Amino acid sequence: MRNVTQDNITQAVIERLAQTPDPRLREVVTSLVQHLHAFAREVRLTEDEWFKGIQFLTAVGHKSDDKRQEFILLSDTLGLSMLTVAMNNDKPQGCTEATVFGPFHVEGAPRYEKGADIANGASGEPCLVRGRVRGLGGEPVAGATIEVWQADAKGKYDVQYEGLDHHRARGVLRTGPDGSFEFRTVLAEAYPIPTDGPVGDLLRATRRHPWRPAHLHFMIVADGYERLVTHVFRSGDDYLDSDAVFGVRESLVADWKRQADGSYLLEYDFVLNPATARTNKETAS
Amino acid sequence: MRNVTQDNITQAVIERLAQTPDPRLREVVTSLVQHLHAFAREVRLTEDEWFKGIQFLTAVGHKSDDKRQEFILLSDTLGLSMLTVAMNNDKPQGCTEATVFGPFHVEGAPRYEKGADIANGASGEPCLVRGRVRGLGGEPVAGATIEVWQADAKGKYDVQYEGLDHHRARGVLRTGPDGSFEFRTVLAEAYPIPTDGPVGDLLRATRRHPWRPAHLHFMIVADGYERLVTHVFRSGDDYLDSDAVFGVRESLVADWKRQADGSYLLEYDFVLNPATARTNKETAS
Repeated sequence: MRNVTQDNITQAVIERLAQTPDPRLREVVTSLVQHLHAFAREVRLTEDEWFKGIQFLTAVGHKSDDKRQEFILLSDTLGLSMLTVAMNNDKPQGCTEATVFGPFHVEGAPRYEKGADIANGASGEPCLVRGRVRGLGGEPVAGATIEVWQADAKGKYDVQYEGLDHHRARGVLRTGPDGSFEFRTVLAEAYPIPTDGPVGDLLRATRRHPWRPAHLHFMIVADGYERLVTHVFRSGDDYLDSDAVFGVRESLVADWKRQADGSYLLEYDFVLNPATARTNKETAS
Repeated sequence: MRNVTQDNITQAVIERLAQTPDPRLREVVTSLVQHLHAFAREVRLTEDEWFKGIQFLTAVGHKSDDKRQEFILLSDTLGLSMLTVAMNNDKPQGCTEATVFGPFHVEGAPRYEKGADIANGASGEPCLVRGRVRGLGGEPVAGATIEVWQADAKGKYDVQYEGLDHHRARGVLRTGPDGSFEFRTVLAEAYPIPTDGPVGDLLRATRRHPWRPAHLHFMIVADGYERLVTHVFRSGDDYLDSDAVFGVRESLVADWKRQADGSYLLEYDFVLNPATARTNKETAS
């Protein structure tokens, strides 16, 4: 097409995508182009605003490296991450709900035995965490891999400390034959997502606070079950109703109980969705 | 909002933007969130696809620096750049049409006198370019700044050569009292947009060729007139109907005439829109 205009350009781009061999890629890119153009038309995007958008996305890319993922942070703060998680984790009643992955997971966290202290030097009130992993039918899930990561008393993850050469408040455990797990760590605290990058600029410009309510991240993987990526949130936190990344579910809020010796105890059980349930559902739909 | 679901999350994000002091920013970001979520819902984006999207955008950012702008290339190949240009340059009949800016403009191009050779060592057939800049009423526009940039015989811009320490086939001229301009350069050739980055990966995955028809870039700035950013395309080029960035307008295609001595001559006149025309139109609408 030679005379591309504002009226026919969307169709021209879609036609150019028609030879895409992978039908799913064609579907996704075609839909993306339609919605991107619809956005530009709806707001009648100016050339100046377009260029500011280019500069913003470039800055988001430049802020991202192997320890900082500003695009995930952007997706999180625009609710896209939680929307994607919610659409893909519509589990049966009774299963533990999923929430956002977040930008602070890293590969290679240390493995710990049951009962170990995963704090490994992280600051904070001492805390014992224990519970069971079960399947939807109530059966204990033995040998499940439980990966945990959290912020310390200063609201920071280990990867946010420059030059720190070991993992802190992060570890991988396995459930016992009865599905139980137990570890020591520090009390999770509310923290602001990093605001020293372009996502922080956007939050300030839209008068949004950057705080996330205190939480522990869990990723639980077991043969025969869907992977579960979730948090457990601390009840009473000021930010439970205004999480900067829209990740809170009522069912994931739990009491961290203060013990006589001043330490804390969190007891929380997880219920996994059998892998077949999802497969059946997808086949049926 | 505590129990965010796939059904209420878009509204939750929009409510969180309600305190944005700048009404235009609020409008743009609100619309962006709605269209971004609508896209994710329409294709039922999987978590895997979401993560591939994060990785793709990160790679686009990492490929961009002061000499390469992969986000502009992405916007160009998705037709967003040309849509934005078309919406914002709906000039009266008789004015020269605008097209995309492209990623190869750089600040600080050398200034040249009328008739100078701006090739400055660029490879290619010799070519003389001349014409006049007029206003919509036919009046000559004296003292207009004309910035020109183009690819060489190898289809490359100067900024694409590693270690080149001077500008080639790029320059700034001024029109004379009668609105005329003239310079020597090399013949523009068709070229592929850079495909060694993530945008190249996307073009290959969608079976799109990366070629742009041969063209000269012009940016013309004059007091009292709207800025004009456009190209002049070479008639007969194989890619006029399938420009990788959707930039071709029939009115911008011109003959490069071969002369007896083997050199080429391009004669092209530009017609600028008086700045007041746009202002009046905007006030009226």
